[in-house]
Amino acid sequence: RLEILTQPLHAADIADLLEQIGPAERRDLLRLWPRGIDGEVLSEIDESIREEVIEYLPREMLAEAVRELDSDDVVDLIEDLEQEQQEIILGALDQSDRAAVEQSMAYPEYSAGRLMQREVVTAPEHWTVGETIDFLRAEEWLPDQFYHVVLVDPRQHPVGYVTLGKLLSSRREVALRGLVEDSFRTFSVFQEEGEVAYAFNQYHLISAPVVDEDDRLVGVITIDDAMNVLDQEHEEDVLRLAGVGEESSISDGVMETVKQRAPWLLVNLVTANLAALVISQFSGTIEAIVALAALMPIVASMGGNAGTQSLAVAVRALATKNLTSSNAGRVVRREAMVGAINGVIFAAIMAAVGYLAFGSLLLGSVIGMAMVINLIVAALAGVLVPLALDHYDLDPALASGTFVTTMTDVTGFFAFLGLATVILL
Amino acid sequence: RLEILTQPLHAADIADLLEQIGPAERRDLLRLWPRGIDGEVLSEIDESIREEVIEYLPREMLAEAVRELDSDDVVDLIEDLEQEQQEIILGALDQSDRAAVEQSMAYPEYSAGRLMQREVVTAPEHWTVGETIDFLRAEEWLPDQFYHVVLVDPRQHPVGYVTLGKLLSSRREVALRGLVEDSFRTFSVFQEEGEVAYAFNQYHLISAPVVDEDDRLVGVITIDDAMNVLDQEHEEDVLRLAGVGEESSISDGVMETVKQRAPWLLVNLVTANLAALVISQFSGTIEAIVALAALMPIVASMGGNAGTQSLAVAVRALATKNLTSSNAGRVVRREAMVGAINGVIFAAIMAAVGYLAFGSLLLGSVIGMAMVINLIVAALAGVLVPLALDHYDLDPALASGTFVTTMTDVTGFFAFLGLATVILL
Ligand SMILES: [Mg+2]
Ligand SMILES: [Mg+2]
Ligand SMILES: [Mg+2]
Ligand SMILES: [Mg+2]
Ligand SMILES: [Mg+2]
Ligand SMILES: [Mg+2]
Ligand SMILES: [Mg+2]
Ligand SMILES: [Mg+2]
Ligand SMILES: [Mg+2]
Ligand SMILES: [Mg+2]
Ligand SMILES: [Mg+2]
Ligand SMILES: [Mg+2]
Ligand SMILES: [Mg+2]
Repeated sequence: RLEILTQPLHAADIADLLEQIGPAERRDLLRLWPRGIDGEVLSEIDESIREEVIEYLPREMLAEAVRELDSDDVVDLIEDLEQEQQEIILGALDQSDRAAVEQSMAYPEYSAGRLMQREVVTAPEHWTVGETIDFLRAEEWLPDQFYHVVLVDPRQHPVGYVTLGKLLSSRREVALRGLVEDSFRTFSVFQEEGEVAYAFNQYHLISAPVVDEDDRLVGVITIDDAMNVLDQEHEEDVLRLAGVGEESSISDGVMETVKQRAPWLLVNLVTANLAALVISQFSGTIEAIVALAALMPIVASMGGNAGTQSLAVAVRALATKNLTSSNAGRVVRREAMVGAINGVIFAAIMAAVGYLAFGSLLLGSVIGMAMVINLIVAALAGVLVPLALDHYDLDPALASGTFVTTMTDVTGFFAFLGLATVILL
Repeated sequence: RLEILTQPLHAADIADLLEQIGPAERRDLLRLWPRGIDGEVLSEIDESIREEVIEYLPREMLAEAVRELDSDDVVDLIEDLEQEQQEIILGALDQSDRAAVEQSMAYPEYSAGRLMQREVVTAPEHWTVGETIDFLRAEEWLPDQFYHVVLVDPRQHPVGYVTLGKLLSSRREVALRGLVEDSFRTFSVFQEEGEVAYAFNQYHLISAPVVDEDDRLVGVITIDDAMNVLDQEHEEDVLRLAGVGEESSISDGVMETVKQRAPWLLVNLVTANLAALVISQFSGTIEAIVALAALMPIVASMGGNAGTQSLAVAVRALATKNLTSSNAGRVVRREAMVGAINGVIFAAIMAAVGYLAFGSLLLGSVIGMAMVINLIVAALAGVLVPLALDHYDLDPALASGTFVTTMTDVTGFFAFLGLATVILL
């Protein structure tokens, strides 16, 4: 019955199903139905439950499942497994497949060398269309999906590629050399996968050869894997901006989730105490005018919001390389101007509210001035903090949120209470 | 000289360059060098400066530039232009290209009908590999990039597709019908582009046919365009979560940026005043124990942070369809547990700090209790707010941040000051 139900499901949907049910149901499902977990499902399964799923599968089934995978999918499957489970899977592969996977595993995590598949279709650069077609027809081994034939010189250096569309629409006697694409570009095995994904998106690449230190062709990266990396990079940004460990997953348990989130809450606790320290310096002022205690979080909250806005725009622009050294100056100036203008707008509103609620023009001007100061600081911090992190080769998304809101909290409380002390007391 | 400098640049990089320089430099560059702006550059240029660039280009150059584009790129180029500029570009196209573009434009914004290109390579379902190759060789007109030959029945309904790799590796007499892919799926012209991008990523699609209301083939969507949509959807989420209009761009001017950000700051001002109102109810308590004024923002800030964490995880999980009705209950329970555990951890820390700093065990317990309450509310609000928005078919990312932090501010201040009033006074 299970088989009938899941038959029409795509491997990726079966994997999602396994991730969404609870651990007990997952175990039952895997016991009832190990044959449903073929190689494709395995390679789609999220890291967070991968070890668990592999644990429950009979060895011979696991071996059969991984043998149908391309080398990049095997690498992706095993790279985060325990040594022991890695060995089981490597042991199931043919000698040559195993060697290919181990070579990829020798490259750093998140590198092009890990992302590429070893199965590449190549042709000598002097071949014609006809020779290539005859070769492809004769070849038993061919990847499931390939989009280019890569031209290589006798020393295996890639020199260009021809799209399959061009091959199919050209006469047999045409030389491959005459059909190569302008868009041809190669990646080094050491290039960061995020950079690779950026380049695929920026240049509309479909597949791209990967070369080793000696410029020799060692693999190819295809756009479906690059798209996946782009999606993961985005996840990382969203989660890091919010102060969550980027390895988090919806199927994580309670204690795992606590572990991912507590560290940033601790950082925030320290910085919040900093803000409290600022406030406590003004306890005399607050004692004298208790209304200040109610109004001061407004200034801080507006600053936090404005800073978050500016930060999101800057982090996103850095990720898409739309914010670079050539326009950083202009963007920073723009943010300062925007902060000043929004500051004046909301200063006017809050000054009016302050006057109407408390009948004091002076109180209104204090909150207004503090608002202008804090919104300018917020807008600047939102862009300068990620720029600074990026400059030191740190991830601009990492911890920026905490830094920026600390700055706006401290500035907001200090400006408001400080001005109140000077003007109102 | 300009030509020599920009010659080796990819169209996408030239477009980025134009976006990053200032308006005056842009005008000079376009005057000096209109021939550099070919169709590809035009289609890469961001909406925010598109009208400006088109304005500066001589008409005949513009006409020449758009004639080399596929229909999807022309649609993307003109869909946000003024009527007048649209007419200039449509007028430059051949009659049949113009008709294709106008038909796409008739479908709703952000639909598959707008995203698809009309140039599709099809073959009758009864053809063999040899017939198909002969057809492709004879055909003058073929898209630059295509990845499948779509099989159609006599009424133009797509019935399957064959990868170009299979075509090239099969003998001439093999029937296309025997080579069709399992992964075949079609999209309706009315499907939302975000859904299309999700499906491409989830199912590793490379291209997919698009059908009209009568199931007739009208176009094809390719993965490079789907990847672009995925990237745009990401941008939308990041910016909406931070309360920024998602049309924002790094090349926007000051006033445009103010307009994008002020509305959400206004919403935040209203909600911040709500929190102030809560505090003002307790002015007697604060007057009696002024230390409360310094400590209360700590509880609110921790709640805001915890809520943001939970929110980011939930919004991302909804976007990737990893949070669905089948696991919503479990995720909500997990968040509540995580909130409680983090609450207890940070309650203990803050209680100790409160005791050490102020020598009062009671003050320590008040802040501890308020912390537990607020972190549970934060974790729950972070997941329930986006779930509720999603339930009512609103974007879970939209305004969630403001809702969640309002809830944690109000809860934080109310719990802390309320408990202080009851226990300490
Ligand atoms: Mg999945
Ligand atoms: Mg990987
Ligand atoms: Mg294969
Ligand atoms: Mg990364
Ligand atoms: Mg792959
Ligand atoms: Mg990143
Ligand atoms: Mg660009
Ligand atoms: Mg475009
Ligand atoms: Mg569009
Ligand atoms: Mg074309
Ligand atoms: Mg296209
Ligand atoms: Mg959208
Ligand atoms: Mg969305």
